[in-house]
Amino acid sequence: MSQPQTAITPIRADDFPEWYQQVVKAADLAELSDVRGCMVIKPWGYGLWENMQHVLDRMFKATGHKNAYFPLFIPLSYLAKEAEHVEGFAKECAVVTHHRLEADGKGGLRPAPSAELAEPLIVRPTSETIIGATYAKWVQSYRDLPILINQWANVVRWELRTRMFLRTTEFLWQEGHTAHETEKEAREETEQMLRVYESFARDWLAIPVFTGEKSDGERFPGAVQTLTIEAMVQDRKAIQAGTSHFLGQNFSKASNIQFLSRENKQEFAWTTSWGLSTRMIGTVIMAHGDDDGLILPPRVAPEHIVILPVAPKPETRDAVYAAVEKLAAELRAQSFHGEPIRVEVDKRDIGGGQKNWEWIKKGVPIRVELGPRDLEKGSVAVARRDKGPKEKEFLPTGDFVSRAAEILQSIQDGLLARATQLRDANTMDIDTTEQFYAFFTPKNPEKPEIHGGFARSHWCGSAECEEKIKEDLKVTIRCIPFDAKEEAGTCICGCGKPSGKRVLFAKSY
Amino acid sequence: MSQPQTAITPIRADDFPEWYQQVVKAADLAELSDVRGCMVIKPWGYGLWENMQHVLDRMFKATGHKNAYFPLFIPLSYLAKEAEHVEGFAKECAVVTHHRLEADGKGGLRPAPSAELAEPLIVRPTSETIIGATYAKWVQSYRDLPILINQWANVVRWELRTRMFLRTTEFLWQEGHTAHETEKEAREETEQMLRVYESFARDWLAIPVFTGEKSDGERFPGAVQTLTIEAMVQDRKAIQAGTSHFLGQNFSKASNIQFLSRENKQEFAWTTSWGLSTRMIGTVIMAHGDDDGLILPPRVAPEHIVILPVAPKPETRDAVYAAVEKLAAELRAQSFHGEPIRVEVDKRDIGGGQKNWEWIKKGVPIRVELGPRDLEKGSVAVARRDKGPKEKEFLPTGDFVSRAAEILQSIQDGLLARATQLRDANTMDIDTTEQFYAFFTPKNPEKPEIHGGFARSHWCGSAECEEKIKEDLKVTIRCIPFDAKEEAGTCICGCGKPSGKRVLFAKSY
Repeated sequence: MSQPQTAITPIRADDFPEWYQQVVKAADLAELSDVRGCMVIKPWGYGLWENMQHVLDRMFKATGHKNAYFPLFIPLSYLAKEAEHVEGFAKECAVVTHHRLEADGKGGLRPAPSAELAEPLIVRPTSETIIGATYAKWVQSYRDLPILINQWANVVRWELRTRMFLRTTEFLWQEGHTAHETEKEAREETEQMLRVYESFARDWLAIPVFTGEKSDGERFPGAVQTLTIEAMVQDRKAIQAGTSHFLGQNFSKASNIQFLSRENKQEFAWTTSWGLSTRMIGTVIMAHGDDDGLILPPRVAPEHIVILPVAPKPETRDAVYAAVEKLAAELRAQSFHGEPIRVEVDKRDIGGGQKNWEWIKKGVPIRVELGPRDLEKGSVAVARRDKGPKEKEFLPTGDFVSRAAEILQSIQDGLLARATQLRDANTMDIDTTEQFYAFFTPKNPEKPEIHGGFARSHWCGSAECEEKIKEDLKVTIRCIPFDAKEEAGTCICGCGKPSGKRVLFAKSY
Repeated sequence: MSQPQTAITPIRADDFPEWYQQVVKAADLAELSDVRGCMVIKPWGYGLWENMQHVLDRMFKATGHKNAYFPLFIPLSYLAKEAEHVEGFAKECAVVTHHRLEADGKGGLRPAPSAELAEPLIVRPTSETIIGATYAKWVQSYRDLPILINQWANVVRWELRTRMFLRTTEFLWQEGHTAHETEKEAREETEQMLRVYESFARDWLAIPVFTGEKSDGERFPGAVQTLTIEAMVQDRKAIQAGTSHFLGQNFSKASNIQFLSRENKQEFAWTTSWGLSTRMIGTVIMAHGDDDGLILPPRVAPEHIVILPVAPKPETRDAVYAAVEKLAAELRAQSFHGEPIRVEVDKRDIGGGQKNWEWIKKGVPIRVELGPRDLEKGSVAVARRDKGPKEKEFLPTGDFVSRAAEILQSIQDGLLARATQLRDANTMDIDTTEQFYAFFTPKNPEKPEIHGGFARSHWCGSAECEEKIKEDLKVTIRCIPFDAKEEAGTCICGCGKPSGKRVLFAKSY
C-alpha cells in the first residue's frame, strides 16, 4: 500500500499532539529553552506574534484604549488581597526571595542570606492587584473615570505540564484593565472587548469561534463574570482563545478604588480585565495546519509571498535575479487590506526542492517560482499553500501581480470556510445521557483522543453535575453561548433536573 | 523682585534633580509604584516609548535584523559561565527560589518549602548567557551565520538608588544579539549599531551625542570593547544613552557557540550585543525640558498637535466643535516625515487656562486654539512649545494646515540646534591638572551640582589615574572619542606620563 508522502510525521490522523510538536519545529516557530517550561520564540513565530499585536493594538486604540506599563513584580500581600484570586494563583507562581548572589564557599554562587527580601515578590501571573493599587491613586472623582488601559507584557504561571504556545511557564500577552463609574458601562466594556477578540479570530485569523459566558466553575479567579471565545481545532477539542472579565467591585474593594460620585457619595469603581496571549499562535497552528505543516492566514503571515528564483546555470543567474527583484518590487507596490504586500526573495544557495518544502512547512500563503524558461515566456509558477504541494498555476507575470491581493483574499476566505465547516460538522445538539457519553468516548482505545467534537446539551446549572461530567469524560462546559435559545430540557448528566437552555460541552486544551 | 512665573517648581537653575522629578510628574509620564524601584509608565510616557520603539524597530529591520523572544529567567549556572559577567551582575539581581505559595499557619502566605527550586533562577539583567546557550544549538556550520536578532524585553537590575527612567529596578529595553563568522564582521556590526543609535538620538530625538569607546574600567562585564553614545543634558552632566558591545569570543566560548568553518575547522563564533532602554526617555526630558515642563521632539511626540476648542457659550459650541473636528481631519491628512500628523482634540470640560498649561507641561509641540471669533475670521491661534507660553501666532486656517509639517520640522531643528549649542559651549579642551580640577569643582557650595561640563583632556591609559579622578571629582571617562586626533600630551591627573590623544571626561548619571 503506497501512502502519499507528507512533510510532517506523524500525520494528524495518527497522532495529533505529536503532529503539533513537529509542525512547531518544522515551521521554525519556537523551541523549548533550558529553563523549565519556557520557550524561545524564533523569528518566524515572533513575526506572526508581531502582526497579531499590530492588529489588536489598532483595535484597542480604535475603541479608546491607551497602552501603559506596570511592574513585573507583585508584593505577596497584594496578591493576597482578593481571596479567590490568590487561591487561583498561589499554587503556580514564581517567587522572588533575594536580591543578591554571593559566593557559596564551594566555588559557586547562592542567594545571599543577607539580601533576603522582607516581603517576597511574585512574578506577575496577571496584574489585577498591582494595577488596582495604582488606579486607587488615580481615581478620586467620577471625572477620573473611565480608565481604559492595555498593557503588552510577559507573565509567568508555573505550569507542571507544558506544551509550546498553548501552556508555557512564561508567555506573552496583552492585558486590558479598565475602571468605570457604573456597572452598566463596565459590562458593556467586557462585552465590547470580547467582540474585538471574536472579530480578530474570525476576520484576521480565519478562525470561527463560539462566544459566551463561563460557568461559575470555569470563571477567572475573582471575576463576577468571564466571557470567552472558544475555537474548535482539528482534533475537535476546544481552545479558550481569549477571555474578557467583568470583575464587578471585587477588585476595586480589594484595592480600594473609590471615587466621589455625581451624587457626591463615595462609591467603588466597576472594573474589567481582558487578555489574549501567544496561546493564539497554538490555536492558529491547530486550526489550519495540514500534514505538510503550518498554513498561515494571509492577513497575519510574516510574509505573504516567497519568491524562489530557479537559476541553476551561472549564465542565466543574473537575468533571473534581476527579474525576481523586479517582481518583488512590483508586488510590494500592491496592497492587501491597505498594507503593502510582504514579499521575501529566497536566494539561499541550497537545493530548490529543499527550499520549496521549507516554505511549505512554514506556511507562507503563496510560493512563486521564476526560472529562465518562465522569463522567456513572461510567466511565473504560482503555488498556493491551501492547495496540494505539487499544484502550480502558470500565470503571465503581470496578471499575477495584479491578482496577488485577490489570491491572498481567496486563501484567507478558504481557510475560514474550511474551519467553519469542520466546526459545524462536529458540533451537535445532544439530548440523551447515553448519546452524550458515547459522543465523548473514544471508539478506538488505541486513539483515545478521537471523539465527537462539541455538544450543545442541557445543563441544570449545578456545580455537581458539571464536576461529574468532567470526572467521567474530561469534558467541561466551554461556555453558556450568548445565542442559546430558551428551551425546556433535562440536564444531560442524568440527574433529571430541568434546564432552560443548552450549553457548550467539549474536551479542551 | 518679581520673578516670571513658571509651571515647574523648582526651576532648573535652582535644583535640577528635583526639577526633573517634577517634570516627570507634571507631564504625567510615570510614577513610582509600591514595588521598590519599579515604575508605572503612564500612557503619555508609554506613547513616547512606543514611538521610539517603532523608529528603532524599523532601523533594526532595515539593517537585516529580526525580532525574537527568549526566556525571562536565567539559570544561576548560566549567569556564572562568564567570570566577569557574573561579577558584574551578581550583586544586583532578583532571585527566584520557589514556585509555589502556601498558608503560613498565621493567616498569611509564604513560599512553600516543598517548592524550592533545585537551582535558583535569575530574572534576566541582560540576556547574553541564555541567548548564547540557544545560539549554540542553532549554529553548526558557517552557513548558519550570521545570526542577527533583536529582542524587546523587560530586564531587572536591583538598584539601591533609583531615579525614574534613568535608573530603575525594572526597565524596558531592546537588546540585539548577533553571532558572526569573523572578527571583522562582528566589529563592523558593533559599530553599525552604534551609528544607528547615534542617528536615532540626533535625527529623531534632536540630541547630539559624542561617540566613542569605553575605557577598560567602564566596559560592559564580559565585553572586549564597548562603544557608547554620550549625551550632555542641561546640568552639563553626561548620560550614557546607548551602548554596543563587541564580545569577541568570550561568550561564544562560555556558551560553546562553535561552527565548522569554510576551512573545515571548528571555530568559536564572534558575538555582539547592543541595547537602548527607557533611560532614553529620561535623556529627552533632561536634554530639552524647560521651566514650564517637558518639550518633546516632534518626530517622537505621542501627539504632534493638540486642538483646544474655546467655546464658553452654549450657543456657539456646536459650530466651534464642528470646526475643530474639521481642522483635526485636515491636519491628519497632512504628513510629517511620511506619517499622518498626530492630532488630539481636547474637549474636556475644564478651564481653558488649566487645559493649556497641562499641554505645555506635557510638551506637545503645537497647541492650537479655536474659538467663535477665530471662526469668524477664518484663523487659528498657534502656539509652539519651543516659544514662550504666552506667545501665539494668528494664522489663516488653511495656511496653518498646509504649513503644519514645516512648523513641526522647525521645532525639531530648533531643539537640535539648541542642544548642540549647549553641548559645544560646555565642552572644552583642558590641558592642566589645575584647570581640570577647577572645571569640575563647584563654585558655590550650596549648588554642588553646578560645574563646567565636558572636558577633552589627555589620559595616559592607566586604570589608577582613571580611578584617582573618579575618587577626587566623581568624574569618569565617558569615552575615547572615535574622532580624537593623535596628539602628544601629558596625563591630566598629574602623574606626568605621556598620552597620545584626548578622552572625554564628565560627571554622569
